This record gives sequence, C-alpha cells and structure tokens, in this order.
Amino acid sequence: MREYNVAILGATGAVGTRLIQQLEQSTIPVKSVKFLASSRSAGKQLAFKGNPITVEETTPDSFEGVDLVLASAGGAVSKRFLPEAVKRGAVCVDNTSAFRMDPDVPLVVPEVNESALERHHGIIANPNCSTIQMVVALEPIRQAFGLKQVIVSTYQAASGAGQQAWNEMNAQAQQHLNGEEMTSTIYPVKGEAKHYPLAFNLLPQIDVFEDGGYTHEEWKMIHETKKIMLDDMDAKAIKVTATCVRVPVGIGHGEAVYFEVKDEQNASREKIQQLLAKAPGVVSDNLLKGAAWNTVQIAEKLVEKNLVSVTKR
Amino acid sequence: MREYNVAILGATGAVGTRLIQQLEQSTIPVKSVKFLASSRSAGKQLAFKGNPITVEETTPDSFEGVDLVLASAGGAVSKRFLPEAVKRGAVCVDNTSAFRMDPDVPLVVPEVNESALERHHGIIANPNCSTIQMVVALEPIRQAFGLKQVIVSTYQAASGAGQQAWNEMNAQAQQHLNGEEMTSTIYPVKGEAKHYPLAFNLLPQIDVFEDGGYTHEEWKMIHETKKIMLDDMDAKAIKVTATCVRVPVGIGHGEAVYFEVKDEQNASREKIQQLLAKAPGVVSDNLLKGAAWNTVQIAEKLVEKNLVSVTKR
Repeated sequence: MREYNVAILGATGAVGTRLIQQLEQSTIPVKSVKFLASSRSAGKQLAFKGNPITVEETTPDSFEGVDLVLASAGGAVSKRFLPEAVKRGAVCVDNTSAFRMDPDVPLVVPEVNESALERHHGIIANPNCSTIQMVVALEPIRQAFGLKQVIVSTYQAASGAGQQAWNEMNAQAQQHLNGEEMTSTIYPVKGEAKHYPLAFNLLPQIDVFEDGGYTHEEWKMIHETKKIMLDDMDAKAIKVTATCVRVPVGIGHGEAVYFEVKDEQNASREKIQQLLAKAPGVVSDNLLKGAAWNTVQIAEKLVEKNLVSVTKR
Repeated sequence: MREYNVAILGATGAVGTRLIQQLEQSTIPVKSVKFLASSRSAGKQLAFKGNPITVEETTPDSFEGVDLVLASAGGAVSKRFLPEAVKRGAVCVDNTSAFRMDPDVPLVVPEVNESALERHHGIIANPNCSTIQMVVALEPIRQAFGLKQVIVSTYQAASGAGQQAWNEMNAQAQQHLNGEEMTSTIYPVKGEAKHYPLAFNLLPQIDVFEDGGYTHEEWKMIHETKKIMLDDMDAKAIKVTATCVRVPVGIGHGEAVYFEVKDEQNASREKIQQLLAKAPGVVSDNLLKGAAWNTVQIAEKLVEKNLVSVTKR
C-alpha cells in the first residue's frame, strides 16, 4: 500500500489546527508529516498522533519529497508556494481562494462533484466555507427536482475570519459587558481604514466591496456554486444571489437558503426534508465541513482514486 | 387646542420605557399620563418630563377618563383590557399581536398606509417590529416599480423578546467568556420545555412553529406585510416568504430582503438606492421604529387627523 509524505501549510492557524486533527483521523496512510508556517511560527511544537513535530518556515524546498500538501495559510502564500510544490511533484489541496476560479483547477466538494478530481493538474481547490455547506444541501434537491433559482442570506461565524479575528470578538464582548468601549482592529476587513466591533453586532460586509454592490464573499458564493455544479449542463442556468453577513458567533455558519425547483409538480416540502435527512455532509461547522474536513475529504478521495501524482499539462 | 389624557399599558417593559421617552418627545398635547402595569410592578416610580409618576395596577376602571392608550404589555393583557378601554371611550394603539389580523383593526405604518387610520373602531394595531422595518423600505420601491415577490431573512435582536430575555443573553455571554456552562430559561420561546443559549449562537426559531414549518413570527411577517400594503389592489398578489432568526445582538434588527419588481425595464439598483436614501423611517431600531416610535407616530397621526374618538360600529 502506498504511503504519503504530507505537508500542512499554515499549520498554526484556526483551520490549520483542525487540518491536523482531521488528518490524524483520516484514512490516508501517512508516512511522514511536515508542519509549515511563516517564520513567525517556525520553531513551535505541535503534536501529530501524539508525536511532537516542530513547525518549519516555508520555503520552496520545503516541498521536496512531499506527496500531498494541505494548504490554508492565505491566498498570497498559496499563490507563491503551491506552484513550487507542484513543480516538485506534490499534489496540493488548497483551502484559500487563490486558485478557485482558475479553469484548470477543480473546485471540489466530494458529495457534489468528486469526478472533477480526475482533471487536476496538481492543485485542487477547496471552496469557500459558505459555498460548501450550501451546495451539499442543494445537490440532492437539484438531482431530484432541478434548480432554477437560489437566494441565500448567510450568518457567518467570527472564526471564518481567522483565529485572531475570533479572539478580537471575544475580547470585545468582555469589554462591552464591562461597560467599556470596544476595540476594533480587524472586522470587517483586516488592513482597511475603518473597523467596527462584531461583538453584539452584525457586519453586513465580508471581505471588500466589488461590482454591483456585492462583496467579494458574495461573488465567491455566486461563482463557486456555479462552478461546482457545472458538471450538470443545466447548472449554468441556475440563478444565484447572496447576502453575506458576519455574526457574533464563534464557530458554525448559518444560511437561510431560498430556492425554486424546476419540477414544481413533483417537489414537496416533505420530499425535500427526506432528501436532506439522508444527504451526506449536511453540517455547518465552518472550520470542518467548511474548511479542514472538506480539504481532508478531497485528499482522501485523491488517495482512494490513486490521483496523488502530477500529470503533465 | 384639545389636550389628551394618555395611559401607557406595560410602562415598565423594554418597549414601555421607550414609549414613555417617545411620548415625552412627541407633538401630542398631553394633559395627563397614567402608567399601568401588572400588580408586580405597581407602586414603582417612573418619571415623565421630570415629574414622578407612580405605576398603577391595571384594572378596567383604570381607563375611565383616558383618551389615548399606548399598549405594550403582551397580547393577553391587550385582549383583556383594550376592549374595556374602548368601552370607556379611549382610543388604543396596540403594540402586541392581539388584534393585528382582525379585519376591523387597521394595521398601520404611517409612512405606508396612514389613511387606514380613518377606518378605526377604537383599536389600531402596531405591526410586528420586523414587518415595520421591511415595509417602510419596500413601500417607495413598490410605488415606483411594483412588487412581485419578497424573500426576507431576518437577524433579530435579543431585546425583541423583552427585557428579561435580553438580560439573559448578556448573562450567558459572561458565563461563556468565563468558561462556564450557559444558563438558558427563555429562548427561543418562554414557557416551552426546551431552551437554548442565544449568546454566541443563532436561534432559527422566533415564537412557536406553525403550519408549513413556518414559525408564528414568520407568518406574522407574511400576513402583516400583505395587510399593510392591501390599500393597493396589487398587494394581494405580492408573494412573501420569511425566515426569522434570533441573533446575539442587544438592539437593532437586521434584514436581508430580496425582492423582484414588476417594472424590470425601468428599475435599476441606482434608482432604488436613491429611493431608499430619501425614504422616511428607514431605520432598524426594533424598540423604536419597530415598536415605541411607530406606536407614538400612529398616536400623533390620530391627533393630527382628529381621530381620537371611538366611532360607533
């Protein structure tokens, strides 16, 4: 049985620590693991199956001899290092948005479009958390009755913006309960000039504003949903619109999804509830199904289908 | 100039205290005020324009000599006492759901259907908070382009469930930050067997579940929206659906409202943004526009139109 040398890129982040847990529990035969992060986190000790592993600073040569990379260290890091990893023969499952809309990169939710994995050229993208949890719920409905239109409003947890942002929300909550002014340095978008508290508040902005008054997060949900469901010829015709809202919750994204089916004659609430009750992967933990678990699920499928090798373009 | 004897029913609650503030600031010429509540709150002192007023226990005779009642003490209290008040010649503006769908009771948002006040028989109902803030935003759009369909997802604040529920959320937040188990006795529905924490959580249930898997709050939004917009003959044809979610916020309801207009040729995002920018009452404070302010606005309109008298049926 083939065993794999696995690297986790961004091992110390909110998703990274869950990637480690998910990899520990996965069916992937792991020969060795490597935990990669920025120079700031290098030297930290993390455990894998009880054994201490020292976090290493990421360089292109970190990927020598690596078969499988699980990446969640931000889009810029993935853009810089994943092509280097692929050059060295590694297959990369990327949890950032860096390559999601690249026509050469499959965007995969195993319950929906597992077969897209067969077309990979070294990089497979893990969709946005809010997209994943929506498409796993919509896919059985689409298969049974077709889909005309999807209108989604999200309720997205603090941790979706990273560990630091999540900590900030908790600190703000304590400040508010103490009757103090809340300190805001991250939400809605790190690095922007104006910040707002998330504790006891709602922020109807996730990521930057773009065309048509939609945020980047909203466009992600629109475009990614269509790309994931594209294997079906009708998917291009599905109308999708999204409103994304950050809510003061630690973990667990919520979504109110309105949809219109094509086959109105045969669809009913009861039938749809039955479909959802037996649909696999219908959970809403944004760090697991929305990120780490889906990433490891993709890696497991790659192993299962013997696709952990880089095919020439 | 006529002056009015005003009674506030439920003066000590989350909305009641704001009713007092709004009445203090209103254009209504107040001759006297009376603060009514349950026996539990009787004897408490509250101020009106700097003068101390003792809260009295509500009895049918409390309404003798009262011209105008502003009520927000729960549906059962309104059902019991408002007919007694009307019998004694008082006109009642009711912030509970007790009479909202009664065909003889106008359901009024002044910016939308002020003229419905002329048909009152003693009781005028104030709509549900989440309905009010939606219809003030939709009305200018409906007037300009017509409305075919409305799909709303709400983000409703803790205070919408009352002062006690709001306090519980804050207590839960502190428990959670201390690493303690959260104590839940109210949300989602007071008196029901099972309770869940609201702090750092979402509760996709506001009020009890009813037909079709919708909650009572969701049906309120659907039915009330149609009733308020019924002056327009097309309103019956507007399709409305709602998903109501309680969020861990103190004050301020949010809503993601998707709508389809009839006149697609002439409508544009820019035109709609312009309409909303100059639309009166487009705010989302659930205790003010959603309750106390709208109630006092109704009372001001009744005074302005000289409608503070009970007409015989």
